[in-house]
Amino acid sequence: MTTLTAPAGLELFEGLLRGELEPPPMAKLMGMELVEATEGRVAFEAEPMAELYNATGTVHGGFAATLLDSALGCAVHTTLPAGGGYATLGLEVKYVRPITVDTGLVRVVGQVEHRGRRQATASARIVSVADDKLLAHGTTTCLIT
Amino acid sequence: MTTLTAPAGLELFEGLLRGELEPPPMAKLMGMELVEATEGRVAFEAEPMAELYNATGTVHGGFAATLLDSALGCAVHTTLPAGGGYATLGLEVKYVRPITVDTGLVRVVGQVEHRGRRQATASARIVSVADDKLLAHGTTTCLIT
Amino acid sequence: MTTLTAPAGLELFEGLLRGELEPPPMAKLMGMELVEATEGRVAFEAEPMAELYNATGTVHGGFAATLLDSALGCAVHTTLPAGGGYATLGLEVKYVRPITVDTGLVRVVGQVEHRGRRQATASARIVSVADDKLLAHGTTTCLIT
Amino acid sequence: MTTLTAPAGLELFEGLLRGELEPPPMAKLMGMELVEATEGRVAFEAEPMAELYNATGTVHGGFAATLLDSALGCAVHTTLPAGGGYATLGLEVKYVRPITVDTGLVRVVGQVEHRGRRQATASARIVSVADDKLLAHGTTTCLIT
Repeated sequence: MTTLTAPAGLELFEGLLRGELEPPPMAKLMGMELVEATEGRVAFEAEPMAELYNATGTVHGGFAATLLDSALGCAVHTTLPAGGGYATLGLEVKYVRPITVDTGLVRVVGQVEHRGRRQATASARIVSVADDKLLAHGTTTCLIT
Repeated sequence: MTTLTAPAGLELFEGLLRGELEPPPMAKLMGMELVEATEGRVAFEAEPMAELYNATGTVHGGFAATLLDSALGCAVHTTLPAGGGYATLGLEVKYVRPITVDTGLVRVVGQVEHRGRRQATASARIVSVADDKLLAHGTTTCLIT
Repeated sequence: MTTLTAPAGLELFEGLLRGELEPPPMAKLMGMELVEATEGRVAFEAEPMAELYNATGTVHGGFAATLLDSALGCAVHTTLPAGGGYATLGLEVKYVRPITVDTGLVRVVGQVEHRGRRQATASARIVSVADDKLLAHGTTTCLIT
Repeated sequence: MTTLTAPAGLELFEGLLRGELEPPPMAKLMGMELVEATEGRVAFEAEPMAELYNATGTVHGGFAATLLDSALGCAVHTTLPAGGGYATLGLEVKYVRPITVDTGLVRVVGQVEHRGRRQATASARIVSVADDKLLAHGTTTCLIT
């Protein structure tokens, strides 16, 4: 459960897109780059790396979970007013195709489904940029604080 | 969806526990260490690091998701016969308390709930080692291949 | 886990739409009516009834779960060849607005997200027909048998 | 999303157990009977009926979802003070064995996993009373209001 308080949500992401703000450590570790942010919708891209492999010769499921969690939470974040915060309560991930270094660049897009007064839900999809194949998808429930 | 084929499942983890096998890259990146493995049950420990932070001053939700995914998948893996494989289809994460570097060492324990012929389900919990507080918990659905 | 074997999936639903086949008992109990079926997509409508209330003055969450489970499973079913079967492994429901008898007719639309050889995933949404407000949404993982 | 305000949570269930309060309509429709309630833990029993069948010759997945939703929400409800309320935000169901009329009486037990100030999580299991086999299990996230 991550609690977050920030200036008007979308502005934060616009600052990141313009390169005025530093990406957080986890984004660097996973090679994630913010590529799009509008109200209720955020996209990141990342290149699957050998450092992210599990014992089975594919990228660990934690990589897709991290991308989805970022896109979902940030999509909700873009809807917050100045001083508003949120906490991610739940994340549900569906793995549909394995990800390897051969997959190449992947893109995750998160989209708000419902923005209520006390809760928000969102859904997100990860696709391969080269051939637009669905690799994983997921949903979240966030608490508006 | 990660597909895995291995010698008798539990033996693989016993080899890891004895230090005869190398942990996979993602385990190193996240600082995860296998600390327990019996049939249907696996535990890892990890120290939350500043490199895993998101923009909000806490560890990114992807860290807990990675720990849970590992413990859940490995718990299922310990039940496989020689030559058996599995693929993780779904991961559901519940975040109940924020994780920071001050949390100290955390432990995740994954336990098989159902091991059928074609599917297996498992549940897992992450607690702080210092005070045994629940930090996150989750479930998985795996395909037995 | 429901296992199902049927003639070519979509034809079954076309027969239901034409009124040539009898709806199953649970559909009658919940007042659900099939209103649309194409490959990978199915819609039902239902009128929330007082018989479905919980102790809190709203329709029980099991009503939305039943609608979502039906629309999700049936959407997957429409993609099956003659003799193909499926089993629902998981259902995830997000409740975003309460449902009461005053909500009036609701519509659930289920849509396949991924149809693999051994697994399929789908997502579904319940909206009020009168004002198209989102009431609940959900996802499923199915095993293709 | 069901919002609920009630006198001290557990007392409500004790009144139901003593037969002083009427079960809600949905409980009657599904044949559910409350059989146990302590702080953080609630159990119901139900007999699978032909009226709950889907088109495939087994009980519809909505039956297990309804039992789990009830046990999960009520387990959270038992932890509420007088005047406290909750809303179910999410329900995740895992189907592990089919349910038919031949399954006989089933029991669902819901247990609180985390009770925070603003959110609670719980897990629940459905087993057959005759042979204690796991039929389905699930989790919930609730908002404390």
